[in-house]
Amino acid sequence: MDPNKRPDDMQRINTPELAQAFIDEQVQAVREQAGDGKVLLALSGGVDSSVVAALLIKAIGKNLICVHVNHGLMRKGESEQVIDVFQNQMDANLVYVDATDRFLNLLDGVDEPEAKRKIIGGEFIRVFEEEARKVGDEVDFLAQGTIYPDILESQDGVKAHHNVGGLPEDLQFELVEPVKLLFKDEVREVGRALGLPEGMVERQPFPGPGLGVRCLGAITRDRLEALREADAIVREEMEAANVGAWQYFAVVPDVRATGVRDGVRAYEWPAIIRAINTVDVMTAEVPELDWALLKRMTDRITHEVPGICRVAYDLTPKPVGTVEWE
Amino acid sequence: MDPNKRPDDMQRINTPELAQAFIDEQVQAVREQAGDGKVLLALSGGVDSSVVAALLIKAIGKNLICVHVNHGLMRKGESEQVIDVFQNQMDANLVYVDATDRFLNLLDGVDEPEAKRKIIGGEFIRVFEEEARKVGDEVDFLAQGTIYPDILESQDGVKAHHNVGGLPEDLQFELVEPVKLLFKDEVREVGRALGLPEGMVERQPFPGPGLGVRCLGAITRDRLEALREADAIVREEMEAANVGAWQYFAVVPDVRATGVRDGVRAYEWPAIIRAINTVDVMTAEVPELDWALLKRMTDRITHEVPGICRVAYDLTPKPVGTVEWE
Repeated sequence: MDPNKRPDDMQRINTPELAQAFIDEQVQAVREQAGDGKVLLALSGGVDSSVVAALLIKAIGKNLICVHVNHGLMRKGESEQVIDVFQNQMDANLVYVDATDRFLNLLDGVDEPEAKRKIIGGEFIRVFEEEARKVGDEVDFLAQGTIYPDILESQDGVKAHHNVGGLPEDLQFELVEPVKLLFKDEVREVGRALGLPEGMVERQPFPGPGLGVRCLGAITRDRLEALREADAIVREEMEAANVGAWQYFAVVPDVRATGVRDGVRAYEWPAIIRAINTVDVMTAEVPELDWALLKRMTDRITHEVPGICRVAYDLTPKPVGTVEWE
Repeated sequence: MDPNKRPDDMQRINTPELAQAFIDEQVQAVREQAGDGKVLLALSGGVDSSVVAALLIKAIGKNLICVHVNHGLMRKGESEQVIDVFQNQMDANLVYVDATDRFLNLLDGVDEPEAKRKIIGGEFIRVFEEEARKVGDEVDFLAQGTIYPDILESQDGVKAHHNVGGLPEDLQFELVEPVKLLFKDEVREVGRALGLPEGMVERQPFPGPGLGVRCLGAITRDRLEALREADAIVREEMEAANVGAWQYFAVVPDVRATGVRDGVRAYEWPAIIRAINTVDVMTAEVPELDWALLKRMTDRITHEVPGICRVAYDLTPKPVGTVEWE
């Protein structure tokens, strides 16, 4: 039987009971696979890696070594939540690496989107590799948050899916991929049954390069910070208004526009609100947001975020636009 | 009696009959002032200078020399309309100067808004001065579209109002300012009575530097052209939808965003739609536009304008934003 093929008769996990049964089964399987060995996991804070972390903590406790690399491009409160949930609440073996300076120094002055993505992806591998080498002698396994769509897509040749691909030859581990046959909704159901907070289980898809591709052009620390605050306001207000959009976030382009604060000329960045609905991410529509909500976000962002004096709502469907601006 | 003081008993010109009476009176006054002399006028195509032109053509015919300087930053079709109305329809003595290259060459690489404004304003004076010198020996009068709010503001010390200020000492003419005691709505009423087309009489306020302050940052010819086309679509659709907004236009910042056209990555400019309502321009509100209208403008701009793959709607009131982005 192909271990990467979901059995035709496998039931969709859509109840707490089914999720619990899956957890019991996987806890057993992981214990059998890893024995007393140590397992390494790159814990981004996304749904998939968070669910794998919680599952493995349940199975092997401190034999799981979670490495959370903060590349400085996380959304507001995300790294803090990872520490709070996994270190404080679940008492995990968590290595927290604040690599903000490394990433931002490398990105200094780089404005081409593909170049930015390569730098962020490459440096992520290097930072994780350094941490892996520190514990490499005692570790035999690498856990990954691979899910079933990843496997289907890599079989289609659409993309190679290694959550931590690119590690050097001498750092190859045996893989532990407990959710690799699950679809996203099932991963969320399992996450809930594992006691992860709702905000983490329902976390929106977030690109690997993080805010790096939403702080358009050459990233600067002040504009990145403005983006992080504006993005937090967009998420907070959209959630409070219970807008069922698939994804929503802020973008801050590298351009300034005039404004007026207390009668004095301001020359600050605009923030763009991006929200989309999609079924398959191949196409996307822009939801018609309530006017009062748009006004409230505009008012809060222009008054609470230093450096931002304008807000616009992106009206572009995909195609012709893409979901992200870079 | 102060000639710059509107008499307390002057009736508001709000009917065709009152407008006609004003025209008859001013035609007489201009003929008395100028006699057989020649009068020079900088004709921008805005409401005020257009009304003065039409009035003076009625009064002194070809003794009025209209100079229209096209700085290359006009909206789509504007210079063409000036030529059509004044040269073709009114048979005016019109000097058309296409100074596009002069302005765009000077602006090449200049990205600071105030520097751009200074270059455009300064060069406008120089081009007009050159034309004035060509006819200077035979001209004694300079006509200006000064209106009453200009006079009130310059008395307040808010700003100096010379429509063609900055001419050198040896080129000082006696001023002819036939609408200097009128408010804007009266100027429009007079324009209608003079037979000017409605699109010219109701023309939105347009900043002196024109599209130069809406093609953000360093102006390039291709982005300026994209802005001109996007702006024309915004105006066409807003007018077709009969949106009673005070002002609406497009802005194209100097930044690129990804998109996808026919399955291929695009990396093009966004266009921002700006619309406002205001009573006194000191504060301004953003109108809630019909969603179908916003979608239609987005669809047309991203498909009809080469180089634009995104459209956003500016949500910022004044304050904190200003009406213009630069």
